[in-house]
Amino acid sequence: MMSSPGCRGARCSMSKGNAGEVEVLLFDVFGTVVDWRTSLRKWFQRFGRENNFQADWAAIVDDWRGAYEPAMARVRRAERPYVTLDVLHRESLDALLPRYGVENVLESDRRQMARAWRWLDPWPDTIAGLTRLKRKYVIGTLSNGGLGLLVDMAKYAGLPWDTVFSADLFKRYKPDAAVYLGAAELLARPASALMLVAAHNYDLAAARSHGYRTAFVARPTEYGPRQKKDFGPEDAWDFSAGSLEELAEKMGA
Amino acid sequence: MMSSPGCRGARCSMSKGNAGEVEVLLFDVFGTVVDWRTSLRKWFQRFGRENNFQADWAAIVDDWRGAYEPAMARVRRAERPYVTLDVLHRESLDALLPRYGVENVLESDRRQMARAWRWLDPWPDTIAGLTRLKRKYVIGTLSNGGLGLLVDMAKYAGLPWDTVFSADLFKRYKPDAAVYLGAAELLARPASALMLVAAHNYDLAAARSHGYRTAFVARPTEYGPRQKKDFGPEDAWDFSAGSLEELAEKMGA
Repeated sequence: MMSSPGCRGARCSMSKGNAGEVEVLLFDVFGTVVDWRTSLRKWFQRFGRENNFQADWAAIVDDWRGAYEPAMARVRRAERPYVTLDVLHRESLDALLPRYGVENVLESDRRQMARAWRWLDPWPDTIAGLTRLKRKYVIGTLSNGGLGLLVDMAKYAGLPWDTVFSADLFKRYKPDAAVYLGAAELLARPASALMLVAAHNYDLAAARSHGYRTAFVARPTEYGPRQKKDFGPEDAWDFSAGSLEELAEKMGA
Repeated sequence: MMSSPGCRGARCSMSKGNAGEVEVLLFDVFGTVVDWRTSLRKWFQRFGRENNFQADWAAIVDDWRGAYEPAMARVRRAERPYVTLDVLHRESLDALLPRYGVENVLESDRRQMARAWRWLDPWPDTIAGLTRLKRKYVIGTLSNGGLGLLVDMAKYAGLPWDTVFSADLFKRYKPDAAVYLGAAELLARPASALMLVAAHNYDLAAARSHGYRTAFVARPTEYGPRQKKDFGPEDAWDFSAGSLEELAEKMGA
């Protein structure tokens, strides 16, 4: 039987909500934990081969990811009601394919393509890092993905989450305050007992503004040649590391 | 890398939402997965010894659990707004202690007592059964406990959940429809792809009425000599087993 962090028999320090101690690590997922770009390129190359679609999949993937921020921004600005990332991905895919000359795609094929965001491979250090960190901390997602997507991805990629926080629990996208504050409330802990781990400075800045601790993990190849930012920490985050294994090392896990 | 259930390379049958196949097992927790009665008796005996409280802890535990259904029922009937199970446990504890002659209890001790519902031991077959079932299915909770409670309990007891569904995600208590339907929606699956595993017939009846598959697990000693029902399946549930290991066996996991 595992002992919970700081739990000593009948008296358990977790009950004190000790503000000084991090108990839970929440992870951004796309880019921080999984390499969406390499994974999607591979998935589409294979899908194209098996289904006789010819296209510049690499460019489609980059443009598809490029459509992600503006699509979420419309929800954030309340220009449309909340819809899941699955819906946003499907809409932007439908807009993209004809521009790349991919025509006559069956509904069932489109559905599968939009779901490819589930079958993403972890970075090489991810599983080892998470496994170490899980021994000492509660680990979970704090992602703009939907819960179903995140659970399917975890099963596919072997991500050993203790719990899954997704945008659809709150019907808001990061960096909306409701996501960070909602996770802390559900965990029944002060935000100071939570740390966000992310490869994106904007996400860490929002988390810190709501009382979270912060850890930056560098993923300088996330966007390939299109990467323009997040090569390193842009503020004095509590931790900064080049991999999740290095983070585990620095956090004594 | 683990393969997801039914996932074959680029084309993945999970994307079809195949109505015939169970993909996710959701578990009732108190009584079904953990033995709250034995665990709380032990916890209180130790707590009393360490803090010089004398009381009939066994009776207190049984009465405490007895207060659980009526307290939730008031929320279900909307006689009060939703509050977490932590709050309900604390209120009923405060009402109980003086009746058993336990007086002058510090606030910090009361807080710890109310949190004892986190430190519950699994039934002897639980970990082995869940570990087997997790290889074939997504496994998660569907409990009236709060998310923080369920995550802390999982860490303490070594329960290998893929995801955690709690009453506070929906601000409703089972058997409210919102809990069963909400979990299916978040998982992005039809209810027919979900199975509830529970030791309580009322819970399975509600789940089935919303389209879930159902599995009964007998826990005939859950309430000790006070147990009046749930000695066996009271309807033709999809599965019925004497333990989670037996359920795994029957489900080919």
